[in-house]
Amino acid sequence: MAAATDHAGLAVLSFEECLELMAHTGVGRVAFLADGEIEVLPVNYTVEGARVAFRTATGSKLEAAVERAVVAFEVDAYDKVERTGWSVVIKGRAEVVLDAALVARLERSGLKPYSTAVPKPEWVVIHPTAITGRRVPPHEK
Amino acid sequence: MAAATDHAGLAVLSFEECLELMAHTGVGRVAFLADGEIEVLPVNYTVEGARVAFRTATGSKLEAAVERAVVAFEVDAYDKVERTGWSVVIKGRAEVVLDAALVARLERSGLKPYSTAVPKPEWVVIHPTAITGRRVPPHEK
Repeated sequence: MAAATDHAGLAVLSFEECLELMAHTGVGRVAFLADGEIEVLPVNYTVEGARVAFRTATGSKLEAAVERAVVAFEVDAYDKVERTGWSVVIKGRAEVVLDAALVARLERSGLKPYSTAVPKPEWVVIHPTAITGRRVPPHEK
Repeated sequence: MAAATDHAGLAVLSFEECLELMAHTGVGRVAFLADGEIEVLPVNYTVEGARVAFRTATGSKLEAAVERAVVAFEVDAYDKVERTGWSVVIKGRAEVVLDAALVARLERSGLKPYSTAVPKPEWVVIHPTAITGRRVPPHEK
């Protein structure tokens, strides 16, 4: 099936494809504004429905900056040999998880934080307002 | 040698380590503001001294948004088995390359654009104002 392509000639992924790719990646990047600058930090994450959840240190710059802020979350993969790749970006509001039932469910995901040097990490969930994805068409060399 | 650690317990990389890691990666992500939202796009890149260069389509959203704007550029790697990883973030001003000598030098780098579906890509260079990097300490499990 010929997928729709965007301005740059990349194939536009469906919502389902985006979720599927996200579910099997595990490391993504949170981009957010802190003190007027764009910060980008890698995190290990898990998926809860269409929501992304990750852990961060209590009191960290990340926790402070993303609380109730609109952030972008990105996952990608690129095959240097085949020169194909894809990326998925979620935009949405981030929120520290206070609900004990949700914390318990997230704990059961088995997700390890990106760094275990961090004591008492908190869970942050991104409630998506948009999920978009692009893929470099496979036969393009 | 015990490296300095940051708030989150991650080892702080030196400027030289950041450049070394960047030089051997090849795919990074540009985070920038467009219409008040944070966008994150993967790009293939090359390094010119401490500057990062990548290609983008003439007239693309990326080209328009990054021209003379402050952007963040991120590269990372994560080993799921060893649970070690690193990330390097460059902040700086992006600029479309108009200088013919620099274009010629960049062309000789052999860099292929992320997507070759893009006609007549332009070179964009990020002039760094800050280069920072973090590494998850290797013996942490």
